[in-house]
Order: sequence, then C-alpha cells, then structure tokens
Amino acid sequence: MKLFKVKAFLLFAFVLLLFFIPIKSIKAQDADSLLIDKLTKETFISDVMYQNLWYLCKNIGGRIAGSPQAALAVEWSKKVMETMGMDTVYKQPIMVHKWSAGDYKEQAWYYTPTQGKIDVAVCALGESIGTDWKGIKAEIIEVKSFKELAAIGKGTIQGKIIFFNRPMDPSFLNTFEAYGGAADQRVHGAAEAAKYGAVGVIVRSLTLSNDKFPHTGVMHYDSAYPKIPAIAISTKDADILSEENKKNPLLQFFFRTMCESALDVRSHNVIGEIKGSVYPDQIITIGGHIDSWWLGEGAHDDGAGCVQTIEIARLFIKLGIKPKRTLRFVMFMDEEIAQRGGAAYVKMAQDKKEKHYAALESDEGGLLPKGFTFDTTEEKVNVWLPYIKYFKPMGIYEFSKGYSGVDIKHLKDLNATCIGLSTNSQAYFNYHHSGNDTFENVNKRELQMGAAAMAALIYLMDKYDL
Amino acid sequence: MKLFKVKAFLLFAFVLLLFFIPIKSIKAQDADSLLIDKLTKETFISDVMYQNLWYLCKNIGGRIAGSPQAALAVEWSKKVMETMGMDTVYKQPIMVHKWSAGDYKEQAWYYTPTQGKIDVAVCALGESIGTDWKGIKAEIIEVKSFKELAAIGKGTIQGKIIFFNRPMDPSFLNTFEAYGGAADQRVHGAAEAAKYGAVGVIVRSLTLSNDKFPHTGVMHYDSAYPKIPAIAISTKDADILSEENKKNPLLQFFFRTMCESALDVRSHNVIGEIKGSVYPDQIITIGGHIDSWWLGEGAHDDGAGCVQTIEIARLFIKLGIKPKRTLRFVMFMDEEIAQRGGAAYVKMAQDKKEKHYAALESDEGGLLPKGFTFDTTEEKVNVWLPYIKYFKPMGIYEFSKGYSGVDIKHLKDLNATCIGLSTNSQAYFNYHHSGNDTFENVNKRELQMGAAAMAALIYLMDKYDL
Repeated sequence: MKLFKVKAFLLFAFVLLLFFIPIKSIKAQDADSLLIDKLTKETFISDVMYQNLWYLCKNIGGRIAGSPQAALAVEWSKKVMETMGMDTVYKQPIMVHKWSAGDYKEQAWYYTPTQGKIDVAVCALGESIGTDWKGIKAEIIEVKSFKELAAIGKGTIQGKIIFFNRPMDPSFLNTFEAYGGAADQRVHGAAEAAKYGAVGVIVRSLTLSNDKFPHTGVMHYDSAYPKIPAIAISTKDADILSEENKKNPLLQFFFRTMCESALDVRSHNVIGEIKGSVYPDQIITIGGHIDSWWLGEGAHDDGAGCVQTIEIARLFIKLGIKPKRTLRFVMFMDEEIAQRGGAAYVKMAQDKKEKHYAALESDEGGLLPKGFTFDTTEEKVNVWLPYIKYFKPMGIYEFSKGYSGVDIKHLKDLNATCIGLSTNSQAYFNYHHSGNDTFENVNKRELQMGAAAMAALIYLMDKYDL
Repeated sequence: MKLFKVKAFLLFAFVLLLFFIPIKSIKAQDADSLLIDKLTKETFISDVMYQNLWYLCKNIGGRIAGSPQAALAVEWSKKVMETMGMDTVYKQPIMVHKWSAGDYKEQAWYYTPTQGKIDVAVCALGESIGTDWKGIKAEIIEVKSFKELAAIGKGTIQGKIIFFNRPMDPSFLNTFEAYGGAADQRVHGAAEAAKYGAVGVIVRSLTLSNDKFPHTGVMHYDSAYPKIPAIAISTKDADILSEENKKNPLLQFFFRTMCESALDVRSHNVIGEIKGSVYPDQIITIGGHIDSWWLGEGAHDDGAGCVQTIEIARLFIKLGIKPKRTLRFVMFMDEEIAQRGGAAYVKMAQDKKEKHYAALESDEGGLLPKGFTFDTTEEKVNVWLPYIKYFKPMGIYEFSKGYSGVDIKHLKDLNATCIGLSTNSQAYFNYHHSGNDTFENVNKRELQMGAAAMAALIYLMDKYDL
C-alpha cells in the first residue's frame, strides 16, 4: 500500500507537472503580451512625447552641432530627463567642429530670354565653403556621373559650375538604396569637379519627391584639390534648370553662400540612466541624435529619435518595469557633420572598460515602424523569431540582419548587439535634411508606434537575455 | 538487351524528371518573382497614376454623388480608360440621391466674456437638413454617449443643441476600431438628440489628430422623430468649446447650414474591361469609388483607389499580361451617401447571371499598404500563405480574414471572394472626410506601392486560381 501511495503520488505529481508546465509558460507569455499591450496603450494615450517634439521643433528649431540652438537642445533634453525620475542624468563633454551656412540666406538666380530673372531656392551643403559677397556666376555643365565629368575633361570644365543632376533611382523599393545610389554627387561632387577646374557645384536634392525643397547634407573635400562652394537645388528646380540649360547652353548661373567655419567648440551628449537591478554593470544604450540641419526643425531627423528615446524611459518608469541591466538614454551630438558624439561615447565606454550589452538607435524618422535591423549574425537575429508575435499587432514583421545607426555602430567593437529601428522608407526622403522636416509632418501615432516597438524590444531583450 | 535499354531509358527519364520538377517549379517561381518585380518597377518609374490623381483632385476636386464635379469625374475617368487599350469601356447608369451642403459656406460662432466672438470652422454632416438663413442659436449640452443623453432627459434637452464630444479612443492600435467606437455620434447623434427635443447637434470630428479640420460623413435620421440639423466641429475646436462651455454653461452657440436635398438624378459607374483569355465569363472586379465629400479633394478617399484601379489596368496592358479571366476596372459612384453604385453593380451581375470570381477594392487611402483582408473562410485565406513571399519586398505581410469594401461586399452573395487592400491606418483619419484630404497629402510612392501590391495579387490569383 505504501508503494501504491508513492506511485499514486508520483503519478499525481506527473499529471500536475503536465498541467503546470504549459500553464506556467502560457502565463509568462500572457504576462509579456499584457505588459507590451499596457506599454503600447500608455504610449498612445499620452501626449508627453509629442509635446516634447513640439518644444524641440518650435521653441528650439534647427540645431546644427556647435550652434546656440544645439546648446539649447542639450540643456532642454537634460532638464526633461532630470524631471523624469531617472537614477542619474549627466552631460558628456565633447568638442565639435563649428560650421554654419551663415546668417545670410543663400541666394541663386539665372536669366531666361522669356521669363527674365528666375530666383532659385538653394541651400549650402554641410561643410562647404561659402562664396564671398560677390558670389559665383558662371556657365553650368550638367552631368549625371563622375565618369561623365571625367569624359568632358578639364578643357571644358575649367571656370564652370558643375550641375550634378542624376536623380535617385525610383525603381528601388527601399528608398535608402536609391539614396545610396545617388549620394556620391552630394558627398564627393565638389571634390571631383574641383579636379577639373570647376568653380562651384550645384547638386540635385536627394529625394524622390518632385518638390521645391532643397535638401542639404554633409560633403567632403579632397585635400589635393581646391575647395569650391557647393549647393543643393530642389528636384523641381533641377528639372527646370536642366530644361533651360538645354535651351540656352550659355546660361549663366549665379549663387551666393556665406558659410562660416570656425574652431572647434564645446558641446555635449546628454545621458540619462535607469540602473539595472541585476546586472547594473551591463549597459543597454538607447538613443537618437539631438543635432539636426538648420533647415526645417529636425523633426524626423532626429527629433523623433530623441523624444522616442525619452519616451521609452518614461514608459519603463511609469509602468514600474525594473530592467535587469542599466538602460542608458543618450542624446547624441553631431551626427550630421562629424559624428563626434558617437565617437566620444564609444571612447568613454572603452576608457571606463564598460560592458555594453546592446544598443538601439532610432534615426529613420518618426514614421511608421516596419522592424529592426540587427548588426550581428543571422543566428543572433533568429533568436528573435519566437518574439516577433508581440510586434505583429503593431504591424511590425521585419527582424533582419542589417545596419544599426551612425551613433551606436562602433559599440559593436565592444561586443554590443547594435540595432536600428527601421521605418517606412517611402516617406523619409520627402523630409530628410530639408525645410520640410517640420513638426507638422510627424504623425503623432506613427511616432508613438515607433516608441512602443522600441520599448517592447528593450523589455524582451533585457528580460530574456536576447 | 532490349529490356536493359528500356530500364536505362526509364532510369534516364526518372533522373530527368527528378531534375525537371524542381527546375520547372523554381523557374515558375522565378518567373513570378521577376514579373512582380517588373510590375512594381513599372509602377515606381511611371508618373501616370500620380498625374491622374493630380487631375482628379485639382481639375475636378470634391465630387459628391449628383454634383457637377461627380459628373465631370465620370466623364474624365471614362476618357482615361478609353485611351488605355482596354477591350471595352462603358458607363452603367444609376440614380443617386442629390444632397449637398449648399453654395453658402457653413458658419458658426459663439461669444466668450474674454475673447468676444469666436468663429468656428464647421461642416454639415452628409444628408443633414440645413438650418435656414436665420440659423440656430441655443445653449449647448455636452455629452459623451447616448446613455448620458437619456439620463439628462427631455426636460433639460428641449430647445438645446447637443454637443457629442466623445473622442476616438487612442488606445486602439488600429484606428478603424477607434473610428468604429465613436462613429455612432455622427451617424445617429441627431436622431437620438431629436428624441429629447434638441434643436441641433454638434459632433466632434472623427479623427485622432488634434487639428482644425472639421470632418463630415453620412448621418441618418429616425423617421419617428423630427429632423434636426447636424454639423461637425474639429477636434481642436471641440476641446476649446468644451472648456468654454464649462466656464459658461449659458454659452449660446450659433450655426447656419444651407444644405440642399433634391430629387434623384442620373449618375454612373464607369467600367473598363480586359477580356479573359481562358475564362472570359469569369469576372474579377477591381475598384475604388469615384465620388467623394465636397470638403478637400477626395484624394485619399477615394481618388487613390480609383487611380490605383486604372494603374492596374495600365500595368497589365503595358507588361502584356493576358489574364485568364475578365478583369473589370470599376469606378463606383455614391459610396459616401447611399452606396447606389455598388448596389447597381451587384444587381447588374445578378440580372445578367454573371460569374464573379473575385473582387478587390482599395478604399483605405493611398497610404502605405499593409496587406489584404479577405471576406471568406480562414482556409481560403490560407491558400495565400505560400504567396506572401512575393509581397514581403513591398513590406506587406498581412493576409487575413476581414472586411472587403463597401462597394464590392455584396458580390460575396454571388460567391466572389471579396478582398480589401489594407493600409497604414495610423494616418488615414487625419485626412478622411475633411478639407485635409488633398493631393499634397498623398505620398506618390505609397500610392504606387498599393497599386503594385494589388496588381501582384490579381496576377497571382488569376494565374493560380487562388
């Protein structure tokens, strides 16, 4: 009878176990679903993040590294994080190169026999030298590639303005690929044209939208050749200029830019932390970049990433989620020009021998989130497969190997898994680096969906050591 | 030896078979991938669809059924289809109820002690009666639900204006659910308020955006009670009015609407066909609705669906795809008011005993496509699972059971598989039924992605009898 009892007990225990295992795992699953649901709802019912973006865009505005606006953005974001109940908030000092398009609005025009003077909206390219007060006036030569430039040669190009007018290729489904295929004109156009004696360059704006916004972006000179001024022209005006130049090859184009370049100045990354409850020495970095171009308000690029970063902290604090690891919320400085903020952050990590577990950046705008790209092996991406279900209600399906973010990518050298939020690329380049990148063009709910998705990713990653 | 030869031949044939089966199926797969790729690229490199939308929005504009603009839109879309090389294009006559908000802009105002007269942008609700020239002026009672209305009761409500101010619930991830949860105020608010003697109703606009656009939409009276005028107010103005009314419960609200309702008038669906090469009697309908509200330009709702429909025809013709079944491209009339176009189309199908294989409608705007909803069984949806891979490059993952479209849903009674294109719902209600629904707010590439996805769906469905 005793043996029978033991057997009966074992049987009972076994049956119990059979029941309990699934119940426990279902419960854990439900708890995660519920928490992510709660976290998403909290994002959607709150105005805090959108108000933050409003402040950054409307009360501070465009904020290139080294500018007074960038300094204001540093102080503002520090103050916002200080009121949130984080464990610590501090500024990391860095030096940034101070460049600006100057106080005087860029000007450009040309004349046509039928319409007279045509004023054209243009903008300086980042790091370009300016013309002087007299400006530059010369005939233009339109080219589509550096090869074409070389074929035309010095004899013809000498003293002229080169007009790089190769459009982004619309046949790419992902517009980042189309951007990659055309960006050489902006980044290296002036350096290439200078080789053949050009006096300036006009670059077609990097967007698939046919509109009137010139889009800026950084460019680099080649130290072996003279520096010549470079500007961008809107896609619409590029098409018109191309037409007019075909009709009148002797058309003279005038432009004046008063760019200013000065010595390095002090600036900062802003860092807030929630200390880890189990592994406080392991760091998960979440960030966006607080600097932006001076055109527009830096709303999508990257005010959105900054306020999403702050929102994730708010969600963790509000819902009482205690992360096992230390979460660091970082406003990176100087992404647009020289990435000094990202570099300084990695250097600090190396110097202090910090352990960096993972890093997540949002720098594709406050647009509808599509997924995450992991700068790691396929195998490490695949550990996420069972967790994608939590993201499907948000319409997020894409967990793939790929690029992370400009400011965090070097944390990979410290063995951190570096991750980027990927968004609806169809819309991004309508705003990117232009006067069209304003608060009004950020859809509150798309911005919120991005923040919710990132918060869910960090929560799951930290909880399940992914 | 002969036997040996036969055996050798059989062996050879078998090995050949082993090779050929996978090769053939891989080839078929590749051919589909290539074709869908080609079709997508053709959409993206072409300006035709976007130019069509531009024409419809800018040269015709808002076009409520029965209006001169709606008649223009019928003639324009017929002409466009006639130039495309379809097998036949024709108009299907229908009768529509002619209602309009009138030539005189709606007016509304109230006074506050501190700010004096406050003018408010409002719009009539579709099918509402107007006030007369004198307008309506009365105290307002704000309510959030019909239950609250009933609790307040006739004694208090008599002679007042009811202000329905329950916002769409932002905690829903899908905004169509949030819309569904608040639309009763617009559709039945006037009928409910009239039960208790109200003289008019103001309805908070159905959007999650906090902006200044009043959003209209259809409403219905209850024949047992008097008809009272109904208007919509923007979300921003609703919040302000609510505040002001709390400060001053005796606040008098004035509004004047000069809506006009007339006898039924002649209108049309416009239908273009590409005849099937194998089963010409089996019909696949693809459509959008050509009518829109008078506010804005009916760009997303549903100019987008119309030009996408036309674009699919263009893609099939341009790429020389010969469908097995007859493709019918339909511009449905009168979706917004009484759905007479959809009803007439089904009736024609029944009368002519047509065989309807499937129907696909795009009526969620020219926004980023997310997937397709099939008004059929789970099993029938699941036949699509092996084909979702073709849509992933477009960021489309959601093939699910769900609602199809207002104009095509009754084709289900004829055993057609009815399907709706589903898009990014986060943005849709920022435009829906408002002055904000303009061409400028349609992203060309998102519109194109929708057309490409629909064309791919029709191609695969027709080829593989899905």
